[in-house]
Amino acid sequence: MKFLIVNGVNLALTGLREPEIYGTKTLDEINGELAAFLNSQGHQAEFFQSDIEGELCAKIARARDFDGIVLNPGAYAHYSYALRDAIAATKVPVIEVHMSNLFSREEFRAKSVLSAVCKGVVVGFGSLGYQLALMSFLE
Amino acid sequence: MKFLIVNGVNLALTGLREPEIYGTKTLDEINGELAAFLNSQGHQAEFFQSDIEGELCAKIARARDFDGIVLNPGAYAHYSYALRDAIAATKVPVIEVHMSNLFSREEFRAKSVLSAVCKGVVVGFGSLGYQLALMSFLE
Amino acid sequence: MKFLIVNGVNLALTGLREPEIYGTKTLDEINGELAAFLNSQGHQAEFFQSDIEGELCAKIARARDFDGIVLNPGAYAHYSYALRDAIAATKVPVIEVHMSNLFSREEFRAKSVLSAVCKGVVVGFGSLGYQLALMSFLE
Amino acid sequence: MKFLIVNGVNLALTGLREPEIYGTKTLDEINGELAAFLNSQGHQAEFFQSDIEGELCAKIARARDFDGIVLNPGAYAHYSYALRDAIAATKVPVIEVHMSNLFSREEFRAKSVLSAVCKGVVVGFGSLGYQLALMSFLE
Amino acid sequence: MKFLIVNGVNLALTGLREPEIYGTKTLDEINGELAAFLNSQGHQAEFFQSDIEGELCAKIARARDFDGIVLNPGAYAHYSYALRDAIAATKVPVIEVHMSNLFSREEFRAKSVLSAVCKGVVVGFGSLGYQLALMSFLE
Amino acid sequence: MKFLIVNGVNLALTGLREPEIYGTKTLDEINGELAAFLNSQGHQAEFFQSDIEGELCAKIARARDFDGIVLNPGAYAHYSYALRDAIAATKVPVIEVHMSNLFSREEFRAKSVLSAVCKGVVVGFGSLGYQLALMSFLE
Amino acid sequence: MKFLIVNGVNLALTGLREPEIYGTKTLDEINGELAAFLNSQGHQAEFFQSDIEGELCAKIARARDFDGIVLNPGAYAHYSYALRDAIAATKVPVIEVHMSNLFSREEFRAKSVLSAVCKGVVVGFGSLGYQLALMSFLE
Amino acid sequence: MKFLIVNGVNLALTGLREPEIYGTKTLDEINGELAAFLNSQGHQAEFFQSDIEGELCAKIARARDFDGIVLNPGAYAHYSYALRDAIAATKVPVIEVHMSNLFSREEFRAKSVLSAVCKGVVVGFGSLGYQLALMSFLE
Amino acid sequence: MKFLIVNGVNLALTGLREPEIYGTKTLDEINGELAAFLNSQGHQAEFFQSDIEGELCAKIARARDFDGIVLNPGAYAHYSYALRDAIAATKVPVIEVHMSNLFSREEFRAKSVLSAVCKGVVVGFGSLGYQLALMSFLE
Amino acid sequence: MKFLIVNGVNLALTGLREPEIYGTKTLDEINGELAAFLNSQGHQAEFFQSDIEGELCAKIARARDFDGIVLNPGAYAHYSYALRDAIAATKVPVIEVHMSNLFSREEFRAKSVLSAVCKGVVVGFGSLGYQLALMSFLE
Amino acid sequence: MKFLIVNGVNLALTGLREPEIYGTKTLDEINGELAAFLNSQGHQAEFFQSDIEGELCAKIARARDFDGIVLNPGAYAHYSYALRDAIAATKVPVIEVHMSNLFSREEFRAKSVLSAVCKGVVVGFGSLGYQLALMSFLE
Amino acid sequence: MKFLIVNGVNLALTGLREPEIYGTKTLDEINGELAAFLNSQGHQAEFFQSDIEGELCAKIARARDFDGIVLNPGAYAHYSYALRDAIAATKVPVIEVHMSNLFSREEFRAKSVLSAVCKGVVVGFGSLGYQLALMSFLE
Repeated sequence: MKFLIVNGVNLALTGLREPEIYGTKTLDEINGELAAFLNSQGHQAEFFQSDIEGELCAKIARARDFDGIVLNPGAYAHYSYALRDAIAATKVPVIEVHMSNLFSREEFRAKSVLSAVCKGVVVGFGSLGYQLALMSFLE
Repeated sequence: MKFLIVNGVNLALTGLREPEIYGTKTLDEINGELAAFLNSQGHQAEFFQSDIEGELCAKIARARDFDGIVLNPGAYAHYSYALRDAIAATKVPVIEVHMSNLFSREEFRAKSVLSAVCKGVVVGFGSLGYQLALMSFLE
Repeated sequence: MKFLIVNGVNLALTGLREPEIYGTKTLDEINGELAAFLNSQGHQAEFFQSDIEGELCAKIARARDFDGIVLNPGAYAHYSYALRDAIAATKVPVIEVHMSNLFSREEFRAKSVLSAVCKGVVVGFGSLGYQLALMSFLE
Repeated sequence: MKFLIVNGVNLALTGLREPEIYGTKTLDEINGELAAFLNSQGHQAEFFQSDIEGELCAKIARARDFDGIVLNPGAYAHYSYALRDAIAATKVPVIEVHMSNLFSREEFRAKSVLSAVCKGVVVGFGSLGYQLALMSFLE
Repeated sequence: MKFLIVNGVNLALTGLREPEIYGTKTLDEINGELAAFLNSQGHQAEFFQSDIEGELCAKIARARDFDGIVLNPGAYAHYSYALRDAIAATKVPVIEVHMSNLFSREEFRAKSVLSAVCKGVVVGFGSLGYQLALMSFLE
Repeated sequence: MKFLIVNGVNLALTGLREPEIYGTKTLDEINGELAAFLNSQGHQAEFFQSDIEGELCAKIARARDFDGIVLNPGAYAHYSYALRDAIAATKVPVIEVHMSNLFSREEFRAKSVLSAVCKGVVVGFGSLGYQLALMSFLE
Repeated sequence: MKFLIVNGVNLALTGLREPEIYGTKTLDEINGELAAFLNSQGHQAEFFQSDIEGELCAKIARARDFDGIVLNPGAYAHYSYALRDAIAATKVPVIEVHMSNLFSREEFRAKSVLSAVCKGVVVGFGSLGYQLALMSFLE
Repeated sequence: MKFLIVNGVNLALTGLREPEIYGTKTLDEINGELAAFLNSQGHQAEFFQSDIEGELCAKIARARDFDGIVLNPGAYAHYSYALRDAIAATKVPVIEVHMSNLFSREEFRAKSVLSAVCKGVVVGFGSLGYQLALMSFLE
Repeated sequence: MKFLIVNGVNLALTGLREPEIYGTKTLDEINGELAAFLNSQGHQAEFFQSDIEGELCAKIARARDFDGIVLNPGAYAHYSYALRDAIAATKVPVIEVHMSNLFSREEFRAKSVLSAVCKGVVVGFGSLGYQLALMSFLE
Repeated sequence: MKFLIVNGVNLALTGLREPEIYGTKTLDEINGELAAFLNSQGHQAEFFQSDIEGELCAKIARARDFDGIVLNPGAYAHYSYALRDAIAATKVPVIEVHMSNLFSREEFRAKSVLSAVCKGVVVGFGSLGYQLALMSFLE
Repeated sequence: MKFLIVNGVNLALTGLREPEIYGTKTLDEINGELAAFLNSQGHQAEFFQSDIEGELCAKIARARDFDGIVLNPGAYAHYSYALRDAIAATKVPVIEVHMSNLFSREEFRAKSVLSAVCKGVVVGFGSLGYQLALMSFLE
Repeated sequence: MKFLIVNGVNLALTGLREPEIYGTKTLDEINGELAAFLNSQGHQAEFFQSDIEGELCAKIARARDFDGIVLNPGAYAHYSYALRDAIAATKVPVIEVHMSNLFSREEFRAKSVLSAVCKGVVVGFGSLGYQLALMSFLE
């Protein structure tokens, strides 16, 4: 199976910004672990990160040859109806992942406009969340 | 007369994504028909599409030598105050077009933050909406 | 083809009231132009105007032998769920037309309770809006 | 001077319905007193009552040869944007009168959608309110 | 005993419009059954239908010689404070009936501005609802 | 036919608490009358009352061999999404009954979160409401 | 009869501030006209103005020997529940007056927290409003 | 390690109620799979189900000797501040699981009052969600 | 005099859970102190605690032979309209007590749906609050 | 110990205004009883009353040599963020007292903007509330 | 040039209250620095502080011979429409200054009802904010 | 010291678009003046402008070697939680600048989602605002 792992805005800085919230692993380290995890089971992943909403839309809406998409949209989760439309446009199932527990932070973070068109949502597990999302596809 | 026809986020996939909502004509086909329609009457069009909000803003705010702009903003309609400012910045009149009837879909689609600074709004006519908008300029 | 063109409350005074908003053509002049436009293409129209909500409901809900209805409801658009039910009751497709750009006026005008059950909406083109609505049926 | 005194929905029953709220004078008695008051000063009045929103709109929007309109809209005050448009359509100044103190009753009565387009508002003086409104025109 | 059975806007089309919601019996058939039911028990009914809000108000506010009123207001239930005042004006107890289950349809239907001044409310039983309302008067 | 008549929280005290609102018949008297009414027509009823939300859910969600359920949930109507899910879980149609007219009391009582998943709603008829609900099943 | 005429915050500047809204008569001129009007009919007035909410409360709550109070609270109308309590504390009837039409200005001005405990409200008649309020007491 | 797996209201019927939403596995089957999964890795689980809010609170607030709690609260998620307090009272970390994607269903389901005091949230994976939650504890 | 002291959901854990908020005295210690306080003055108390909303309702609604009830409802304060009805059902006056200052914590705690039907409310005094409530009955 | 007892707007009239709500004891009588109560136990009090928000702020923000402040703010409770800041500015703990049960009166009274920065709140005990607040300091 | 520097409620305590929010400089020190700064450039200032809303209104509304006003309203910013009217009444431009960053504190502080009628707003710079405001006048 | 001056969407057109709102100086002229101002005092600036939200995020979140950032986000201020996160991610203090007075324009402009994570906010001073922000860093 082949998966697309997409990280959105500000996530390139994971491990560097606000580590008390987002942890100290860099995005490269996280992606490396995910690749290792998948490869060990005979699966593959493509990794994509962009800070630009339109590029994230383009990548997701055009995704065709994947068995699943794991998406951490960053703050676009809270207002990007464009991203919501992109998720609705692809036929590949998407799982939304957030590393921190959005529900115990500022009120605006408690609402994701994307969740309604995703298959599932995983919130609050740090970088482990990506792996849990992938596991759900592998079951 | 010369017109600028702008399509926003996810609209490059028109005809491919959710055809029960957006129809089966591709954006190229739609644009081709509009060009033919205009040319047959001695008018011209420039076509522009981008998924990136900032590029749409730049294109519209800087539009100078057009007699009218037809804009389908896609989902940016619902929150892009940046695009609203860009429309207010240009002196060319803008008509907002949506192919589906936004008012019979999810609640968040019922509000466009752009309409207040457009000249007119055309909603629910599929790809014909672009042509109706152009006709309004030709009258 | 045969069309029903319905004008709602206060629209009999078009051309006379607030001409800076609604223009200077009278309703008779507008209807005359629409009749000429349709006749020139071999189509027919019936014209109906009433200030009374219940009469508008009765006319629309009972419309049977038309290929399309063009409805400018006037201010009833903002609260007449009765009119909404009448539109839902007829099998003829209805297009909602407003001459002024409702979205750049008072806030209460930005919401039409009718749009969700109409086929399409045309806003802001003055009396040309009726003709654009008819054109959409002719395509 | 000549005035138009308009009473809206359910007001034909004044004096008969809920007298603890609306008093025991009938509408005829009230109108008779107003006529006497005006005549004694050399002025005239036309009286109009209808339960039908569209008829009230038609009467007011078409009012031309009056020096002022005194309008008790009844419950239409709370939602009739049609009546609001009719008031905006006439060039005659309109004063809105309510016999009971709307602000000490149910919450929905605290808002009149008409007041913004009227010249003044008189609330809570029983049938005397009509006379106060007329006095304001006479000053 | 003598009852007034009032049907409001669009209800003349019952049986013809949206039968999946409102059933296939016409209003005449429903009224016929109600008359038969009452007559069989020695009671009488008067039937009234109007699409016009002001006529419904006039009928109800002036009702005097009835033991009860059964009112299906149609969509006026959701905004007609005029009708609410008319119900408050009569001394005859009023029962509000809706054929479909308003609470499982669009959100705007979940609120009736009339219920607070009615004696009781019966929702969701199709044409049987009228009969249940009458039965409540007969007990 | 066999019916389940369920009374929720605080309803065991009917006849004893706030008799000006809920009447003076005890729940046993009400249930006795309903049993007599049903038996006289050859039908049966099971009666259940609990103050405990979870017990009400369990009873309703597991109801299998009934032709209909009559439910007076008491105040749980206003917030028990658990009860709503229980109603959705059973295949037996449920009719919601409230003895007092909820719509003329405190504002919070005007909303029942259960009504959307019930077949019908009967409000304001005192203990007669249960019987009207049963009659609707018998028709 | 003896009246108390109270002017609240910023009203000492009437005639000097924003004359396009509040007119060009000074408060002294207005009060002088009112005194003359009352005296000519054998009545008396006491005049009080303060910018300080607590002083206005003290004056009104302690008013005892007046037949009526005419109160223009200025902007305190929109939030001074203290003033509301003071009006409720006096036994003298209070009429609320605003010179400009609050309902056609900023949205926050459309709500007065005082009106519910006043006897009547007069809005939009400039300085004539005080006189209309007094006339209502004299009738 | 030892885990507590808690299922709330209506979840005893899992597999039997609305299988298109909640799947066809019974709660016993789900629990059996989880026990097998844990045992295979040398861990233990205690299973608890109740329809009664207070019993769920008591169980969770008193949980002491567990390494983690997996909680599917059912509909109590949407309003049980009591359960929220119980979660805050225990020192054991709690993961909230919902089988269906709450965000694509009725609007009231989009808010859980519990999430803010949980460690993480897993939504939309059917019965697999429990296992993902457990996996997160095992990592 | 005889008093009923009722503690609601999660309060059995007082002294053990979140001691920085609720203090370190156990409920038994608090109740012991209250009993001693009352006994020393010749009064009596009955103590009741339940986590189950329905049991709390049953206890309070049926309370008959008490001179006063002191109720700490725990989190049920924020949504239990059932408990509100139970308080309204008893004839014994009820005082609502909360140990922590609800108004300086999460926003949802600032509203108690019970306070409107209680005689008084005491908030923020820790376990002393129960005693203050009792003192108010003794005065 | 030394206490400051502050009464806010309109409270000088206690015993005279609306005695059915605020009782018949005058403020002097209440203060006299409190002084006697404190003196009998060897404590002292200073009493302060003002109708003027700014004077109340100045008094409280500058309070230094007190062991506690008992504050009945009157209607300023509902909107005076200035008073809130004054309470936050002093280091002396403040207890908020209201004589009537604010929660069973008009909706605007249910919210105090001060409670969040007070130590405790006592509502609904008439003049006894001051004494309960003082007792809490003495414990 | 001559400036008026106005400080509102509780600001006399600057430097003494909550120094972690408002700093440790007293208002006298701040004003001294501003005077020195202005004098060094040949300008003058008048300083005014009051805790009383009405006095602030009077001072500002009557300001005539100043080139600019720098206003720190304190908490009155959040609700004093009276102060707003006073600012609108003066012809001198007003700049609103807040020492702390209102937008990162309690939600009620994020809204100033004054800003709309001020020339500019400076927030979050401690006592330096006054100087920045003055600099803007000097440019 | 070294500063980063960032201008967001549509600001490249400053001086050209809506000059009555944004003035007639171009962005180059503004930046030139700021550079001259800083250089004259021995400081440096880097200038950055982008219409693209993601590029603005990337620039700000990665800013490391600056003593301060001056950010005019344009319309992104009103909804870009992504930009908010980027500001939170950098360790450099950020001052938010808007040239026009947002609080006296459309309602949506009155809220910036960025201000809570900025050090200070400067609104309404035209191009001078950038300089005031820089001055605050220099103090």
